[in-house]
Amino acid sequence: MQARHIRPGQGQAVELKTGQLLQIQTVKGKQVADFVAFTLGDTGEYLSTSATRATNATIVPQLGMTLYSNRRQPLFEIVEDTVGRHDMLFACCDPVRYEMLGAEPGHASCRAALTDALTDYEIGFDRIPSPINWFMNVGIQQRGELEIREPLADAGDYVVLRALKDVIAAVSACPQDMGPTNAFNPTALMIRVFRDAPLPDPPVISNGVPPPTRTGTASPATPPGRLHDTPEATVVRVE
Amino acid sequence: MQARHIRPGQGQAVELKTGQLLQIQTVKGKQVADFVAFTLGDTGEYLSTSATRATNATIVPQLGMTLYSNRRQPLFEIVEDTVGRHDMLFACCDPVRYEMLGAEPGHASCRAALTDALTDYEIGFDRIPSPINWFMNVGIQQRGELEIREPLADAGDYVVLRALKDVIAAVSACPQDMGPTNAFNPTALMIRVFRDAPLPDPPVISNGVPPPTRTGTASPATPPGRLHDTPEATVVRVE
Ligand SMILES: [Zn+2]
Ligand SMILES: [Zn+2]
Repeated sequence: MQARHIRPGQGQAVELKTGQLLQIQTVKGKQVADFVAFTLGDTGEYLSTSATRATNATIVPQLGMTLYSNRRQPLFEIVEDTVGRHDMLFACCDPVRYEMLGAEPGHASCRAALTDALTDYEIGFDRIPSPINWFMNVGIQQRGELEIREPLADAGDYVVLRALKDVIAAVSACPQDMGPTNAFNPTALMIRVFRDAPLPDPPVISNGVPPPTRTGTASPATPPGRLHDTPEATVVRVE
Repeated sequence: MQARHIRPGQGQAVELKTGQLLQIQTVKGKQVADFVAFTLGDTGEYLSTSATRATNATIVPQLGMTLYSNRRQPLFEIVEDTVGRHDMLFACCDPVRYEMLGAEPGHASCRAALTDALTDYEIGFDRIPSPINWFMNVGIQQRGELEIREPLADAGDYVVLRALKDVIAAVSACPQDMGPTNAFNPTALMIRVFRDAPLPDPPVISNGVPPPTRTGTASPATPPGRLHDTPEATVVRVE
């Protein structure tokens, strides 16, 4: 496929066959990608963050991890990750959230964008699951308080997921502009599906450390190269 | 209503009108209660742990907290809590989980029990949401690892929820007997709905501290009496 560009407040759905790869990339950095997925042709099965947390015994999405469905079946593996800091605790932003924050009526939201992106599959607003929020940077404090911080992702940073089943995946570029979620300035994402072709070269990392390693054999014990130099990115900060 | 007794591996569903109270109580202590809920007559709306975490900015269910739906509408308030340590991160145990753990086929599970309890409402296995796991004691370690520990709940400990909408609530007594979730020995729960009658006296607390205060005006800043003497119970342990 051609790369698809997702503007803030918009969403895109793509179908993936088993084994295909989905790359989700920030264009300018500091941008969150809300992500949900369903089994193709059987959308009662969907990516479940609670099954993923429970089966992996962690709240942190990380390289090599398998993402599970509500039937506790493997749906994806995280095969590349140039950032190492993502969220799977927060709900999508939605119209009520923006109302609570005092936004003008009609503010774009991830939940509406994902609903729109999935129109052809008749998922509907109520059935948008709890997402994985790629690049969202959430600190957990001593008593369990959640604090949203600016993403660690820089321009060109990305994750790559391998589909372990035929799935529909949908991604929104979060339009939250009233807090640090997207550094107060939502920007675009790119998504690409790789079918047979090899992945392109990793982007040049601006701080001069080696680019992330291709990790088809990734395990949770092998973080990407970049993280060796930024250990903070793998740590849930506790204050 | 009469109190309903829930044996491990079984579930019960009850309807609550706005303002009614649901008490969920351990009989012998150290027993987890998986809890899900739906709007009565409109089951596309359900209790959402991710909306609850996001709107309250915490991962810890606690006294005075409002529990939100997938439409980010208030469904419940936690009005009494004699324990102060619960989970809203883990999925229900399910048949695949027990298969992974090497159990005999046919092991009872919360997901199956809740599905059965909700048969009359045609919710179905796939639509059982991520639960709140009352009395489940989960530690979060430095890098986000989740560690299941024995519940802090003793015999007679309970939570009380006030319905903020007409709802169907379902509770299962977790049959997990292969780990510390229920201290390796699942036991029964009691649930009671209070319509017009006042709540019964709180149980006598065995360690001699004053019983928990009635907290119709509870706020998150006012933990129940017992917690003043066991600060651990309000803290997410980080090691
Ligand atoms: Zn958003
Ligand atoms: Zn269970």
